[in-house]
Amino acid sequence: MDRSTLIAEIFRKQSFLCVGLDTELAKLPEHLRSQPDAILAFNKAIIDATRDLCVAYKPNLAFYEALGPEGWSIFHQTVQYIGKEHLIIADAKRGDIGNTSRMYAEAFFQKMDCDAITVAPYMGEDSVSPFFGFPGKWVILLALTSNKGSVDFQRQPQNASGEELFEVVLRRAQEWGTPENLMYVVGATHPEAFRQVRRIAPDHFLLVPGIGAQGGSLAAICEHGMNADCGMLVSASRSIQYASAGADFAEAARAEALKIQTAMAAILKRLV
Amino acid sequence: MDRSTLIAEIFRKQSFLCVGLDTELAKLPEHLRSQPDAILAFNKAIIDATRDLCVAYKPNLAFYEALGPEGWSIFHQTVQYIGKEHLIIADAKRGDIGNTSRMYAEAFFQKMDCDAITVAPYMGEDSVSPFFGFPGKWVILLALTSNKGSVDFQRQPQNASGEELFEVVLRRAQEWGTPENLMYVVGATHPEAFRQVRRIAPDHFLLVPGIGAQGGSLAAICEHGMNADCGMLVSASRSIQYASAGADFAEAARAEALKIQTAMAAILKRLV
Repeated sequence: MDRSTLIAEIFRKQSFLCVGLDTELAKLPEHLRSQPDAILAFNKAIIDATRDLCVAYKPNLAFYEALGPEGWSIFHQTVQYIGKEHLIIADAKRGDIGNTSRMYAEAFFQKMDCDAITVAPYMGEDSVSPFFGFPGKWVILLALTSNKGSVDFQRQPQNASGEELFEVVLRRAQEWGTPENLMYVVGATHPEAFRQVRRIAPDHFLLVPGIGAQGGSLAAICEHGMNADCGMLVSASRSIQYASAGADFAEAARAEALKIQTAMAAILKRLV
Repeated sequence: MDRSTLIAEIFRKQSFLCVGLDTELAKLPEHLRSQPDAILAFNKAIIDATRDLCVAYKPNLAFYEALGPEGWSIFHQTVQYIGKEHLIIADAKRGDIGNTSRMYAEAFFQKMDCDAITVAPYMGEDSVSPFFGFPGKWVILLALTSNKGSVDFQRQPQNASGEELFEVVLRRAQEWGTPENLMYVVGATHPEAFRQVRRIAPDHFLLVPGIGAQGGSLAAICEHGMNADCGMLVSASRSIQYASAGADFAEAARAEALKIQTAMAAILKRLV
């Protein structure tokens, strides 16, 4: 999915919600847990309940890999079930030496039909660049993550410029990709940092995890994070997927997604 | 495999070689390429040809993921074929928020029976710590990688200490793991940096890629990198796996591994 289609979808649906699919057997409603295809059945129900309310889905690979070899097949079937009308983000946080990153790009863009992949920047340019050059596909580079450990290295000031490491990542990566094929991960748990991010990267889309279970506020991040194209995909995973542990899990997931989408629509109205 | 067993194996085999299994269909000898189980058959032949010459195997997940869902099954069958007498390193470069890293740990240590996993440090403590606490299992944290892009962020001086980022990673991670469950990746393409590494981490094992196809020198890295327990696992992948593109690929792989093991034996003799 290219940038202009994504922007059009955001304004059409009045939503910049990305629904995470971090599906864990132990957290499924009891009536599903014993089914042979429990994870896939749960994913399909969550997808059906939220399709019109979100523009992106983001399965996190860890949850599928934890299922063993079968997990990749469930992941792929989930991607196929989503179809072509949403941006599908493989939350995989990959990154390796050049010839190896190229293999990851083929895995996620070609074999698995994903639109985007999250990539870790630690190994530098030649670990990130092989992911570019697939038309309509996106690199979503970790810049400032939502977790507590993000302060350990990402927020450390660098000698050369006095900038924090994540600012250097934002700046350097703009030499490698463009707003048409590069987004950044910026966690909602650092609302004050969005102004810094937009100073360096005014046009790029930001993928923002950390609202919901991790406690970040939608209003706070939108205040300084949005641009004229919206420029944000805000993801929520656990708060939607596990809104109810009962038989009504899909309705509860829809209600939670609708709450977020309604807030997003109000924010988008102020934008235009 | 625990630390004392690993050290014993190194001195028994007179080898600290780790054979990478970065298997790519397009690079296989032609007579194998059309077989239905080509990748697995190739891996088995490489393993059989090198078992007595190495102490570790390191399949890189990218090459298996690029095969689609079936790739994880080939990866798992490869791990099972290696058996219990070698350290099996999943070169996966994972790392995510805490609850997600825990899923990756379960995937690689429990479902996939690996002994070690490479982990990227960018997301900090809570992205790394969930990989600890599995008895006999190892985190191998990226510190200074072998690729060109390693200079982009890893070698940047940090304000607080004047240390380079990889030195801060080495130092901070010692608060999270011990020499019994934590190794570091340090690329052979930075031979001059091994002195810096050993100043900060004298006891930890180092996993050293970058000899062979990437051009690093075994003698140069051993001079400053070894400690009294050897303390190094030096990996070679392409130079062994693809030593010959013909029907004699396994013999050629063995000859290449033997050349490295012979050099290692000479270096180990000087150590004791």
